[in-house]
Amino acid sequence: MSKTLPADSVGLVTPQTHHFDTPLPLDCGRELSSYDLVYETYGELNADRSNAILLCHALSGSHHAAGYHSEDERKPGWWEACVGPGKPIDTNRFFVVCSNNLGGCHGSTGPSSIHPTRGEPYGSDFPLVTVGDWVRSQAQLADVLGIETWAAVVGGSLGGMQALQWSIDYPERLRHAVLIAAAPKLSAQNIAFNEVARQAILSDAQFHGGRYYEQNKQPEHGLALARMLGHITYLSDDAMRAKFGREMRKGDGKLKFSFDVEFEVESYLRYQGRSFVDRFDANTYLLMTKALDYFDPAATHDHDLSAALAHVTARYLVLSFSSDWRFPPSRSREIVRALLDGDKSVSYSEIEASQGHDAFLMPIPHYQAVLGSYLANVAREVGV
Amino acid sequence: MSKTLPADSVGLVTPQTHHFDTPLPLDCGRELSSYDLVYETYGELNADRSNAILLCHALSGSHHAAGYHSEDERKPGWWEACVGPGKPIDTNRFFVVCSNNLGGCHGSTGPSSIHPTRGEPYGSDFPLVTVGDWVRSQAQLADVLGIETWAAVVGGSLGGMQALQWSIDYPERLRHAVLIAAAPKLSAQNIAFNEVARQAILSDAQFHGGRYYEQNKQPEHGLALARMLGHITYLSDDAMRAKFGREMRKGDGKLKFSFDVEFEVESYLRYQGRSFVDRFDANTYLLMTKALDYFDPAATHDHDLSAALAHVTARYLVLSFSSDWRFPPSRSREIVRALLDGDKSVSYSEIEASQGHDAFLMPIPHYQAVLGSYLANVAREVGV
Repeated sequence: MSKTLPADSVGLVTPQTHHFDTPLPLDCGRELSSYDLVYETYGELNADRSNAILLCHALSGSHHAAGYHSEDERKPGWWEACVGPGKPIDTNRFFVVCSNNLGGCHGSTGPSSIHPTRGEPYGSDFPLVTVGDWVRSQAQLADVLGIETWAAVVGGSLGGMQALQWSIDYPERLRHAVLIAAAPKLSAQNIAFNEVARQAILSDAQFHGGRYYEQNKQPEHGLALARMLGHITYLSDDAMRAKFGREMRKGDGKLKFSFDVEFEVESYLRYQGRSFVDRFDANTYLLMTKALDYFDPAATHDHDLSAALAHVTARYLVLSFSSDWRFPPSRSREIVRALLDGDKSVSYSEIEASQGHDAFLMPIPHYQAVLGSYLANVAREVGV
Repeated sequence: MSKTLPADSVGLVTPQTHHFDTPLPLDCGRELSSYDLVYETYGELNADRSNAILLCHALSGSHHAAGYHSEDERKPGWWEACVGPGKPIDTNRFFVVCSNNLGGCHGSTGPSSIHPTRGEPYGSDFPLVTVGDWVRSQAQLADVLGIETWAAVVGGSLGGMQALQWSIDYPERLRHAVLIAAAPKLSAQNIAFNEVARQAILSDAQFHGGRYYEQNKQPEHGLALARMLGHITYLSDDAMRAKFGREMRKGDGKLKFSFDVEFEVESYLRYQGRSFVDRFDANTYLLMTKALDYFDPAATHDHDLSAALAHVTARYLVLSFSSDWRFPPSRSREIVRALLDGDKSVSYSEIEASQGHDAFLMPIPHYQAVLGSYLANVAREVGV
């Protein structure tokens, strides 16, 4: 490892891509005739292939969960707080895999990828993939990597929903599911926020029905708005107060009487919106929000989550954060209750944290301790 | 009163307009050389002019608080639930006045009004008015109406902020201030939502720097987005769940795998957005959100609200609603605490209600009873 990178990081990592030629059937009824998944791995797969952990990323995440792509990379992967040597998801013990979701914009096949026969980007023709589709494609990747059974499938937010779906769709292929800051389905309010974000993108004059790649520019105003709105829901009211209060960007406290940036929170949001446009694709954002809205494993079981989970065999760790108002603790408890109804094994902890939904990405000692000790038991169980 | 209109309504009402030729100095340092205020009145002013109540409207409200403009009007004024004969704001006892805020788009001078000398709409040249400016203009209107002292100044949300400002700026001109679902200033999260709404409008390709009147069309996508977002914050999570759940608009429960309207909540929001565009002006929306952001009477008193309220003489009724997360009860309690610090007279009630911020507009029995009995005492006090 380079001496410029922190010692507790996995250090320099190189993404890998696997090309699948076996068609993938999708929940929408269509199929992808071929597709790529880009992924990263950290740590070593042990001889009996029992120590693999799959990380599932959330809405705007990617396969780059930990480490650095170069010594110059300014920021490490999105879950650097929890993934690395000696960290809760301990790469000295586990072989950790994280793939970019299908439909993404970081290397896995998605709307901005070139259609295999048409020779132009899929654009809005890319199918609306679901959490179930992601799990199905990740199972294909597991086959490629020779992983019959994951020691654990772990994810936060939308990633936690994928972990739950894994335990439903492939009960025999994971020992543990770790669901962090997740929900068994979106509330009307959650869907409402997603809908406003989508309308911001769809109504942007530069959206061009999703075929904006040809113009070589994004519906950037709409995508920035969607991201700004998302950020409000990721932070708690308290966290925003602590971070920004009503501080003026210029310290003189004088009102400008214009629509320029004035309060610090405005400056923060505009920056978040602008910088997101440079690294994300609007069609992918649309698709990810729709996968969130559609996630509802109980829907096919007469809206009875216990029934949907009747056959699962994984053991669960469910974690929530006290100030998360996007997927508050009550939503995690719905999952816990449904599991207990079916006499399943589940540990639950509600972490005191002021950071809101974003807490799942942060180095919060109690959170890291709970996650770390659960996974240390998993490590012992699989003999690493 | 027409027999087609409800008996407990003020019935048919006709807005009136007063043209002011005395320049109005504004907090931004500019002035309006002349301006119109449109207003409605309900009930009769008594001989000693002691029974007048001023209603202050919120962000998207208008002077049309109660009754009907015609027998065909589909919906009555915005506060029909509380204003009328025998209602909490009893027009059999009080003379009730409600004016459209300066900068509005319902008849008072605002961005869509014709500039007196330039002969074209003000557009983005209309000054950013503040809550203090509104109060100053309402005081001019009170002079015109011959009302030296209001029996009460009453408002919900942004209207409650105006009532608070009245008690600070003209302590001798009101006996009571009724502040409903208000806050002493916006939180960072409140400002953040306003900023996203403003950016939606400002980044709409049809905004044209606020000079869209010449094109004869609004930045309608941006304004609709702003309204959709607003609506999410007006309803509680529970109210949304009760109202929409995850109900599909088509009853078959089948997913469409498209970005068409699918969930009921999406349909509701899109309708709210679309219909708002027909009756509201984008420049006014920008200006109203900015007035909200700027409201902070403690700012000029070293951020000490008690100090800002040290000289007030009104008696206060402060009401909040349990499920309001836009201006939650804790924000009302900040006002109550500051008043009690200064040994002022204040009654406070937190109303149990599931409707969120919107509750202040609704016929909730306990709310109506508290408001009604407080104002009945005011009526006795002023001899009506």
